[in-house]
Amino acid sequence: MSIAVRTAETVWEGELGSGRGTLGAGSGAFTDQEVTWASRTERSNGKTSPEELCAAAHSSCFSMALALKLGEKDLVAERLQVRAAVTLAEVAGLPTIATSALEVEARVPNADDATFQAIVAEAAELCPVSRLFTGAEVTVTARLAQ
Amino acid sequence: MSIAVRTAETVWEGELGSGRGTLGAGSGAFTDQEVTWASRTERSNGKTSPEELCAAAHSSCFSMALALKLGEKDLVAERLQVRAAVTLAEVAGLPTIATSALEVEARVPNADDATFQAIVAEAAELCPVSRLFTGAEVTVTARLAQ
Repeated sequence: MSIAVRTAETVWEGELGSGRGTLGAGSGAFTDQEVTWASRTERSNGKTSPEELCAAAHSSCFSMALALKLGEKDLVAERLQVRAAVTLAEVAGLPTIATSALEVEARVPNADDATFQAIVAEAAELCPVSRLFTGAEVTVTARLAQ
Repeated sequence: MSIAVRTAETVWEGELGSGRGTLGAGSGAFTDQEVTWASRTERSNGKTSPEELCAAAHSSCFSMALALKLGEKDLVAERLQVRAAVTLAEVAGLPTIATSALEVEARVPNADDATFQAIVAEAAELCPVSRLFTGAEVTVTARLAQ
């Protein structure tokens, strides 16, 4: 059963090295984002890239999965800070998205560390983006702030 | 060998249903993007979502892979329009990113359709995001404009 369909579109002109793309989100949340091979693989110079967009997807998805799993234990996050770092690497001669590493800092009233870490592990199992990214190594480290 | 690391961060407050997240990209290309469960699964109301960000990653990555593969055959795209549609669906009781469907419209001077379709197939094999998204069914349809 379909829950939601979301779209995005890139218009690319020219060669890989000297060309450029313009990316927009179907929702209109972001438009006219320029993407280039140089900004993807060298300095970003304020431009997004496929890896950064994957990090954004993973970070936002995991925060929701964790909020859900906390709620199932009657816990509510005051604040979840979820940082994702996605690495493009050369693997067997091909540019490959090799890892997505999540770092979570959480303020959750009434949670103890053992309970919190068990909930983080459940969220990692559930997170739809983690289950999508089976081509990469996904890791999660989490810390409960006092 | 690492080529690039890109990051993003979400700060989430509250429960899944009534809470909200604020998402920013490490490059600064987009900041203060609000994400909620309702806008993810019901009407987007101008807000992005993990699925839309996955579509943006796939669209931008595939356009680069196709530009590269065209270049290897001494072809240069005047214009590649790459639309990605990513579906969140309930699969075995879990919200799951089930499909990412790419639609390409291309203007490539001096390309014939058979050559173009063969190059599209090579790009689909190469595209790092396609190889990352092994948890979903990835499809590509492409049309060469005359």
